[in-house]
Amino acid sequence: MTMKERIRELLNEKKYNTLFEYLTEQNVVDIALVFNELSDEEIIRAFRLLPKETASEAFSYMDSRVQEHLIRVMSDRELELVAKDLFMDDTVDLLGEMPASLVKRILKAAKPEDRKIINELLQYPEESAGSVMTTEFVDLISSMSVLDAIKKIKQDGISKETVYTCYVLDHARHLIGLVSVKDLLLSSYDTVIDDIMETNIIKAETLEDKESVANRISKYDLLALPVVDKENRLVGIITIDDAVDVYTRAADEDFEKMNALSPSEDTYFKTGVFKHASKRIVWLFVLMLSAMITEAIIKNYETALSAIPLLASFLPMLMDTGGDSGSQSATLIIRGMATDEIHLKDFFKVFWKEFRVAFLCSSIIAAANAVRILVQYGDPLVALSVSLTLIGTVVFAKLLGGMLPMFAKLVKVDPAVMAAPLISTIVDSFSVFIYFNFAMLILKI
Amino acid sequence: MTMKERIRELLNEKKYNTLFEYLTEQNVVDIALVFNELSDEEIIRAFRLLPKETASEAFSYMDSRVQEHLIRVMSDRELELVAKDLFMDDTVDLLGEMPASLVKRILKAAKPEDRKIINELLQYPEESAGSVMTTEFVDLISSMSVLDAIKKIKQDGISKETVYTCYVLDHARHLIGLVSVKDLLLSSYDTVIDDIMETNIIKAETLEDKESVANRISKYDLLALPVVDKENRLVGIITIDDAVDVYTRAADEDFEKMNALSPSEDTYFKTGVFKHASKRIVWLFVLMLSAMITEAIIKNYETALSAIPLLASFLPMLMDTGGDSGSQSATLIIRGMATDEIHLKDFFKVFWKEFRVAFLCSSIIAAANAVRILVQYGDPLVALSVSLTLIGTVVFAKLLGGMLPMFAKLVKVDPAVMAAPLISTIVDSFSVFIYFNFAMLILKI
Repeated sequence: MTMKERIRELLNEKKYNTLFEYLTEQNVVDIALVFNELSDEEIIRAFRLLPKETASEAFSYMDSRVQEHLIRVMSDRELELVAKDLFMDDTVDLLGEMPASLVKRILKAAKPEDRKIINELLQYPEESAGSVMTTEFVDLISSMSVLDAIKKIKQDGISKETVYTCYVLDHARHLIGLVSVKDLLLSSYDTVIDDIMETNIIKAETLEDKESVANRISKYDLLALPVVDKENRLVGIITIDDAVDVYTRAADEDFEKMNALSPSEDTYFKTGVFKHASKRIVWLFVLMLSAMITEAIIKNYETALSAIPLLASFLPMLMDTGGDSGSQSATLIIRGMATDEIHLKDFFKVFWKEFRVAFLCSSIIAAANAVRILVQYGDPLVALSVSLTLIGTVVFAKLLGGMLPMFAKLVKVDPAVMAAPLISTIVDSFSVFIYFNFAMLILKI
Repeated sequence: MTMKERIRELLNEKKYNTLFEYLTEQNVVDIALVFNELSDEEIIRAFRLLPKETASEAFSYMDSRVQEHLIRVMSDRELELVAKDLFMDDTVDLLGEMPASLVKRILKAAKPEDRKIINELLQYPEESAGSVMTTEFVDLISSMSVLDAIKKIKQDGISKETVYTCYVLDHARHLIGLVSVKDLLLSSYDTVIDDIMETNIIKAETLEDKESVANRISKYDLLALPVVDKENRLVGIITIDDAVDVYTRAADEDFEKMNALSPSEDTYFKTGVFKHASKRIVWLFVLMLSAMITEAIIKNYETALSAIPLLASFLPMLMDTGGDSGSQSATLIIRGMATDEIHLKDFFKVFWKEFRVAFLCSSIIAAANAVRILVQYGDPLVALSVSLTLIGTVVFAKLLGGMLPMFAKLVKVDPAVMAAPLISTIVDSFSVFIYFNFAMLILKI
C-alpha cells in the first residue's frame, strides 16, 4: 500500500490515533508530496493530525495550492503556530505565492519582531541574493571559548536553519570570521574562537545576482554562504539546499528557453493543458514569424527554382545544419557564462575559437557532401553550390551562436531568450540567401 | 594584483617564506584554480610551499593535467603524504584520470588498509551510487550516550568527509539509524543515541543509478546519504557536494545532447579546437544524413514544385515549426524523467496531455497562417494545404517528442541522445511528405 492509500484509508476509517502515529514515522517531504494529491477536505483533516514538530516543515514543502487552501481554513491561532516555526526564507517564498488577502493574515500571524524582518526581505529584488537568504543563523563573538560557543548553539540552535557554520560578529554586527561545528568539536573546550575562526571568508552581498552566488556555493563546496550588506554587516545566509534550487532552476530555464519554451515554475503534470499551450505557442509564433523572412527570400528566387527544382531538395539540409551549428555554439557559451567560466572579456577568444572550430567542421561536411551529391545526382555545379553554402552557413552560424549570447549579456538581455529565436531566424535567412546566390552564379541561371 | 600574479611574483623573487604565508591565507579552491594556470615548473615549486594541511585538499581540486604532472615529479614519500590525506572518493576519481603507470604508484603510496577499500570502490560500475560514494563517515552504536558520541566525533572526525550526520550501526554493521550533530548538540549529554536516532532512513543501494540517488539527496534536502549493500550494511556515504556535481553534470549532458553536442567532461576553454570539432561534427553528420531523407522526399515531388514553385517557400516554416514543437515536448519529458516526476507508467497520461496541447497549439497557428497566406498570396488552396500540414505536423511532432524519450528509457537507450536526431529526422520527413500530398490533392497537381 502506498503512503497516500494508507493515509486515505485511516482517514476514512476515522482511525485518527493510528494516523497520528503513522505520520510521526514518515519523512516530511513525503508527507508534503502526499498532501499535494489529497482532496481539499482530506488535506484539512490530515493536516490537523500532523505532529506539531513537523507540521510547519511539511507545510513549507507543499504546493502553493495546498498551502493557500490550508491558510484559508486555519484559525488565526493555528496560523500563528505554523508561522512561528517557518523559516524566514520559506515565509517569504510563501508570501510571494499567496493572494493579497492572505498575505495580510500571514503577516499578522507572524511574531512582531519577525514581521519587520520579513518586510525587509520582501524588499530585495527577485533575482538578488537577498531574496533567497534566510535570517536564522548562529552568531558568536570572537572572545568566546569553544564551550561558550557550544552552549550558545544548544540555546539558539533549535530555531536556526543550519548550525554547522557559525558566524563571528563584532559589536556592530560586522562579519569578522566563521567557524564550523566540525572545528568546534575537534578543538578543546577552552580554545578561544578568535584562534580557530576562519577569517578568509567567501561571502556575498545582498544585491548580487542569486545565480552567481549559487555558483559560488557550488565552486567552494560550502554548506552555507554568509550574505552581508554594503557595510559588511551580516544580514543573512544562503544554505546549500536553496542554492541547489536556484542553480538547477536556472539551468532548466536556460534550456527551456533554448528549446523554444517559456519557462514556468510548475512541473509537467501540475501545469494545465492551457498553460502548457501558452508556454509553447508564444515561441512557435515568434519562430513562425521568423520563418516568414526565409519564406520571402525563397519566394524571391522562384525563377531559379522553376529552372532547377532540385535546388529545393537541399534546403532542409542547409537550414538544419546551420541551425544545429548555431545552437551547438550558443549552448556552450550560454552554459559557460552561467557557470562563470566565460566572461565578456573573452569575446575575441571565443570568436577565434569558434571560427577555427567552424572552419574545421564545415570543411569536412562540405567535402563529404560534395562527393555525395556528385555521386548521387552527377551534377558538379550543384555540388559546388551546396558545399560553398555549407561552409558559409556553418562558419556564420557558429560565430553568431557564439557572439549573440555574449552580446545579449552586454546589453543585459537574457542570453538564452535572445539566442533561441534570433539564431534560427538569422541563420536560416542567411543560408537561403547565399545558397540561391551561389547557385545562380555557379549554375548561370 | 590577482592571486596568480602575486604567486608568480613571489616565486620569481624567491620569497618563499612570504609565499608560504600568503598561501596559508588563501582558499584551497582558489589555490587549485591558480595552479591550473601556472607553468609546469612553477607548479612544482609552488606545490612544495603549500601548507601540509591544505596540500591534499588543494590537490584534489586541481586539473588532472596538473595532478599528473605533480605525481610524476613527486618522491614516493611526498606522494604518500598527499595520498594519506585524500578522501577515498577523491582518490578513486584521481585513479580514473591517471595513466596506468601512475595508478600503480598511487596505490602503492596509499595505506594498505585503504588500498583494499580503493580497489573495492574501483569495482563499482561508472554510473552507480557506489562509484561516487566515500567511505569516510562517523559510525556510532545505539547504546552510546550523546557524550560518548561527541567524544567519538572528536576522535575520528578529523579524517571524515562530513561529521554532521553520524550513522548508527549494529554489531554486523547494518545501518539501523542516523543522528545529526544538530540533534547531538541539542540533547543533554546523558541521552542515549537509541532514543534520539532517526530510524526512518532515506538511503541508497551501491548499484543504484547515481543520478536518481543525487535526485533523492536534493528532494529530501539532505547533507549526506548513506549507501548500503544488499544486506543493508553501510558501505559508504554520498555527500551533497558530490551529489550536486552529479546532478548538474547530468542536466548539462542532457541539454548538450539535445542541442546536438556529444558531451565532454571539460569546460569550454579547456577543450581544444579539434576536440570541440569532433564533439560537434558527429551530430552534424547524423543530422545531415537524416536531412537526406527529407531531401529524397522533396526530390520526389519535383513536378509539384515545377508547377507551383511557391510551395517551396513554406518548407522552412513547416519544418521549423515541426522541429520546435517536437523539441518542446522532448525537453519537458526528458527533464521530467530526469527529475523523477515522469515515469514509464505515465505513458498514456503524457500522450493524452501532449495530444490536447498539440491540438490547441496547432489549431491556433494553422488558423493564423491560413489568414496570413490568404492575405499575402490570395490563394485559398495553398493556405488550406499549409494549414492542414501545420496541424498534422504539430500534433505528430508533439506526440513523437513526448513518446520517443519514454520509449528510449524503456529500451534503456539514453533519451536525450535518441531524441535529438530522431525527432528532427522523422518530423521533417513526415511534414514534407504530408505537405506535398495535401498540396497535390487540394491543388489538383
